[in-house]
Amino acid sequence: MEHKKELVLGLAGYGVVGTGLARALEEAHQLIPERTGRSLRIKTILVRDVSRPREWPVPEGARLTTSLEDLLGDPEIDVVVELIGGTTTARDILRRALEAGKHVVTANKALLAENGEDLFRLAAAGNLHLGFEASVAGGIPIVHTLRNGLAANRILSLSGILNGTCNYILSEMTHKGIAFNQALSEAQQLGFAEADPTLDVGGFDAAHKLVLLIRLAWGVEYPYTRLPVQGIDTMDPVDIAFARELGYRIKLLGHARMTDNGLEAGVFPTLLHESFLLSSVDGAFNAIRVKGSASRSVFLHGRGAGATPTGSAVLSDLLDIARDAKPNNTGFLRQTPFPATIHNPDEAVDPYYFRLQVPDNPGVLRDVAGAMAENGISIAHAIQKGQAPDIVPLVFMTHKATALAVKNALARLEELGLLRAAPVCYRVLAPE
Amino acid sequence: MEHKKELVLGLAGYGVVGTGLARALEEAHQLIPERTGRSLRIKTILVRDVSRPREWPVPEGARLTTSLEDLLGDPEIDVVVELIGGTTTARDILRRALEAGKHVVTANKALLAENGEDLFRLAAAGNLHLGFEASVAGGIPIVHTLRNGLAANRILSLSGILNGTCNYILSEMTHKGIAFNQALSEAQQLGFAEADPTLDVGGFDAAHKLVLLIRLAWGVEYPYTRLPVQGIDTMDPVDIAFARELGYRIKLLGHARMTDNGLEAGVFPTLLHESFLLSSVDGAFNAIRVKGSASRSVFLHGRGAGATPTGSAVLSDLLDIARDAKPNNTGFLRQTPFPATIHNPDEAVDPYYFRLQVPDNPGVLRDVAGAMAENGISIAHAIQKGQAPDIVPLVFMTHKATALAVKNALARLEELGLLRAAPVCYRVLAPE
Repeated sequence: MEHKKELVLGLAGYGVVGTGLARALEEAHQLIPERTGRSLRIKTILVRDVSRPREWPVPEGARLTTSLEDLLGDPEIDVVVELIGGTTTARDILRRALEAGKHVVTANKALLAENGEDLFRLAAAGNLHLGFEASVAGGIPIVHTLRNGLAANRILSLSGILNGTCNYILSEMTHKGIAFNQALSEAQQLGFAEADPTLDVGGFDAAHKLVLLIRLAWGVEYPYTRLPVQGIDTMDPVDIAFARELGYRIKLLGHARMTDNGLEAGVFPTLLHESFLLSSVDGAFNAIRVKGSASRSVFLHGRGAGATPTGSAVLSDLLDIARDAKPNNTGFLRQTPFPATIHNPDEAVDPYYFRLQVPDNPGVLRDVAGAMAENGISIAHAIQKGQAPDIVPLVFMTHKATALAVKNALARLEELGLLRAAPVCYRVLAPE
Repeated sequence: MEHKKELVLGLAGYGVVGTGLARALEEAHQLIPERTGRSLRIKTILVRDVSRPREWPVPEGARLTTSLEDLLGDPEIDVVVELIGGTTTARDILRRALEAGKHVVTANKALLAENGEDLFRLAAAGNLHLGFEASVAGGIPIVHTLRNGLAANRILSLSGILNGTCNYILSEMTHKGIAFNQALSEAQQLGFAEADPTLDVGGFDAAHKLVLLIRLAWGVEYPYTRLPVQGIDTMDPVDIAFARELGYRIKLLGHARMTDNGLEAGVFPTLLHESFLLSSVDGAFNAIRVKGSASRSVFLHGRGAGATPTGSAVLSDLLDIARDAKPNNTGFLRQTPFPATIHNPDEAVDPYYFRLQVPDNPGVLRDVAGAMAENGISIAHAIQKGQAPDIVPLVFMTHKATALAVKNALARLEELGLLRAAPVCYRVLAPE
């Protein structure tokens, strides 16, 4: 690419992230030439409706259009920034922009996680940038950190609070003792949750991000459709309270670790000991802990969403382009990840938290402990409290056990007729 | 530079960091070619005494030498990695290596902070890398983060726990209630502090790092010799205890913020509210909080020293070189920082913590509050406790005041004969 004094941008989308980018760019208009020798200019913005009011003015000199051709067919545009979300039109825009020889930057985690391979191949074939810093953890530069700052580490594990909506809801439930539905509707009123919250509270958004982090950390593909995912939509504040009593917080955690038997990964509500920095991540923040073979534990914390934090991430990719950096899209030489060797999720070994509603009979604790012991699960701490007559919650934490042993133990308890309600069972993040 | 299958390294020094690099490199020997297409090989290691026993074997195929010429005169060596510390020989090695057309990587914060300018100029003139990720905050990739991940942000402030020795000592004093000297000698026994601890406990090491962070954040030079620095060597555990009672921890903080009147910076023991993530950084860890115009607050935490964490940082620079990345040494186009516009340190505005030993007379609190008020300082919280007969500690926190007002108020109290011992006075990091 010829080194022009300006890097010219075409935006697809001018919603929260698009306007955030425009704001961040205006804030940095003096700084960017000092850092890169070039200015960034938004020339054309693709929108569905040019007359709709915007949260931030259209930058001076930029024009709105409803025609994708105004981006793709304009030889002056160097980079197409895709900020419309979704997986159909967005994919088409990115593919065609790369085919037209333009660099691309995107915040689209769903698209890249579910169906990104050919985009990375196209980018590599054209020696083009495919920047996606904004697709994971908002303003935290985790993509750059895994591709560059920690690039010489064999990654042992990574653990992230990757969805601000869930973290906000869980924080509210923790601090106010309110129910999930109330916390969700408050989050919706504040704009922290969508009208249809499934993607967030079901854990699927965190799963998309985890798939991208796994690619960056290990250069391998853990297919999104195979990733074990459990959301927070059935979270009961009573478990948050019991966890606190035991010295833990419950967070929705995306977790991946490399074992001798392959990669273990999933998104689960997880108990974190209060001595872990991850446990103190409150509100709509994100945080990621990376354990590297040499660096050991590195922890990053910041805003997981929001207009200008996401704009900051988009700009970091644009600065790489403005600096004429060599594309380093995947962080590896190969542009297509190897299929991950996946450790059977049934064999993942973790400590667990249980809450069982059991009859208040003598001998119940013995029978429960027996069903656990039969499956090789040993109990570490237990809390038993009187509550309703006849039925009591039996709360305990176990030493490490396989997911299969936990399933089998619960089936056995069911068989013995000991469960008066659906059992609650969450993983605990063990110190490593 | 020709793209060879190997990047060949010459090391100067094979102590803690050198052996840590060798270990980290061995751990990553499969990964690095996957990430860069090349292997890294240590060919020659400059040491003072080839017969001295080492903490880690000399890598296979490498040889020890006592002659710098074996590094500089060897055309096969692409990069000289300077890990001997000190500012005289190290400077000579780096300068001559750059003049010989070799990339350099260093962990030497003192050298770069006190006298780095011509090295950056030499590197730029030769289009060479001058990597210094390892010189600040060990395994935390803060140099890459400021140069790349957060590069499009106007930095509003940065605050760091930059010296692991001090943080270890303060943590021990906090958790065990022991005196500074005892904590220091324990740290020395554990290898966390040098026999001569002045550079660490005097705050000078943190000051070197802060100067480097300021260059990366703002592209300006705050001369090391002008930076206000206060160490922890006079820290009394009683102040740590009073601070805790008020909901604060005391940390040695390197802090810089951009104000309308210029840059405000310094290294001071500082009270951090326990709700700040920085306050929960314990032991020999480092952490840095960066506030960017777009990203807002980003917090990074990890090991500030140690063999392989520092090795990880050195390797991150070596991977940039192995990837044939364009040198981006300063993070700015200019290789020589502008002189910083420095806000008069006397005019820095912060809340303060005071502990005064005052006579136990009626009217003393009135007189103290009067001396404060005369200087425009208002008291936010006060604790007064009976202790020795006749003399009591008067502990209070103030609203924001200038450093000059604090000086003047203390002089006035002295003049009034109200101080029975040297006053203790620390800054408080205010929420921004």
